[in-house]
Amino acid sequence: MGSAIVRAWLAAGITPTVWNRTPKSPAGAVVADTAAAAVAANQLVVVCLLDDDSVTEVLDGVELAGKDLVNLTTSTPEQARARAQWATDRGARFVDGGIMAVPPMIGATGAFIFYSGSQALVEEHTTVLAAPARIHYVGEDAGHAALYDIALLSGMYGMFAGITHAFALLRADGIDPVAFAPLLVDWVTTTTASAYGVAQRLHTGNHTTDVTSNLAMQVAGIPTFLGTAKAQGVDPRLLTPFFDLMARRVEAAGGNEDIAALVDLLAGHAPVGV
Amino acid sequence: MGSAIVRAWLAAGITPTVWNRTPKSPAGAVVADTAAAAVAANQLVVVCLLDDDSVTEVLDGVELAGKDLVNLTTSTPEQARARAQWATDRGARFVDGGIMAVPPMIGATGAFIFYSGSQALVEEHTTVLAAPARIHYVGEDAGHAALYDIALLSGMYGMFAGITHAFALLRADGIDPVAFAPLLVDWVTTTTASAYGVAQRLHTGNHTTDVTSNLAMQVAGIPTFLGTAKAQGVDPRLLTPFFDLMARRVEAAGGNEDIAALVDLLAGHAPVGV
Repeated sequence: MGSAIVRAWLAAGITPTVWNRTPKSPAGAVVADTAAAAVAANQLVVVCLLDDDSVTEVLDGVELAGKDLVNLTTSTPEQARARAQWATDRGARFVDGGIMAVPPMIGATGAFIFYSGSQALVEEHTTVLAAPARIHYVGEDAGHAALYDIALLSGMYGMFAGITHAFALLRADGIDPVAFAPLLVDWVTTTTASAYGVAQRLHTGNHTTDVTSNLAMQVAGIPTFLGTAKAQGVDPRLLTPFFDLMARRVEAAGGNEDIAALVDLLAGHAPVGV
Repeated sequence: MGSAIVRAWLAAGITPTVWNRTPKSPAGAVVADTAAAAVAANQLVVVCLLDDDSVTEVLDGVELAGKDLVNLTTSTPEQARARAQWATDRGARFVDGGIMAVPPMIGATGAFIFYSGSQALVEEHTTVLAAPARIHYVGEDAGHAALYDIALLSGMYGMFAGITHAFALLRADGIDPVAFAPLLVDWVTTTTASAYGVAQRLHTGNHTTDVTSNLAMQVAGIPTFLGTAKAQGVDPRLLTPFFDLMARRVEAAGGNEDIAALVDLLAGHAPVGV
């Protein structure tokens, strides 16, 4: 990821001074012998390492006073907030970033990076920060870039689980997954738009008005899903926790709610009154 | 759903003879006093009931010889195949259908219905069958319409689980779900296209060439997801089975595979050689 970002800067006419634990940098960048030397070269310091511990390991003892530190290393919100405090203690301004792209996407139009922390830092370095990927600033709380990042990736992992189960169901019947993929992509894409309605319900707390497919109807369909998985020789474990959650909610609050109500169960909040 | 289909036929200038267990039909349809009378009125008989048992209950003893029976009742592939045999035994041609729409979508452009079974039946009644929703015929095996239907809905339930977890993560920080929804929809939609690549890998059995984010990298990120869920007070149960599956695969086959390899684990097949 670091190399991809450096290449995007070079393509934009920006020459960074780089340091890497394994010396390997795109041609055109200025290579520093030590992390301290790389940090000393410019006011803006962008860090992209394996994990939060690596950041401590690489930067501890390096002079950061007066620097603008941007940490693109994958972190939890808690780690990002602790790192913000750590940077402030050392006299640096701090922004945490969550990269919403894989390396081949860096520099292309689809990529973006969540930033949170010092808005002044982001505004002063907009040109450099925007070169690898579009800037999406989500507030002064240094933990929020990581939180938004992890929330989107969590949504994606659920989708991955769904498509894994879907493809598995076809195998016993020898249905070609390549022919099936466009149907699956279209259907999941179309139904993903239901997140707008879920968000509206979470905003208002109203889970019962104008519900198209209520939880009782959906719970009634569970045996069809489990029976089909069993007949196709597919382990249903990726979907059963969601089915169980729906059944639990119907038992606790009646079946006339939208699936948005399940967020209340998962986040450990008391059910909203119905 | 039955009412929505009848309204679509009426809008297309087709006058059906209808029967419903609870007498309630859209204005304009001919109402029969009994299921047997409704069946006797036309060669094409379309059934849309609560479940497979209801079909037996309503149609047992009704004369079906020479009829073209289309069953839109939600069924498993096994139930659909048994129903095809049941219809054939009574001298009827049979097609099973899986409706990919909620009632408000019937008659609109996005809706479609998977059909499988007698292709001749579908071809002879194309005009009537296409009025409520686009026809998507998937073969002579009467079980395949239900299999395709359930596979798509399974993919959707995984996505639902993902967005439920994503929204839950935001709650402790008071982030407005309405502002977050467009980001979530865009990200899940974009990443859903990875199903094309998964399908290609399942087709060829090659899970290791040109992998962008291999399982080892994804497994390395699991503590970030679980740690964030814990800190946000969110029960991770909707995502942990997928994380566990990834970890299990890395342990068994090394970490250089694409997530497509997980289908092998879920479908109970021996791992493909790497």
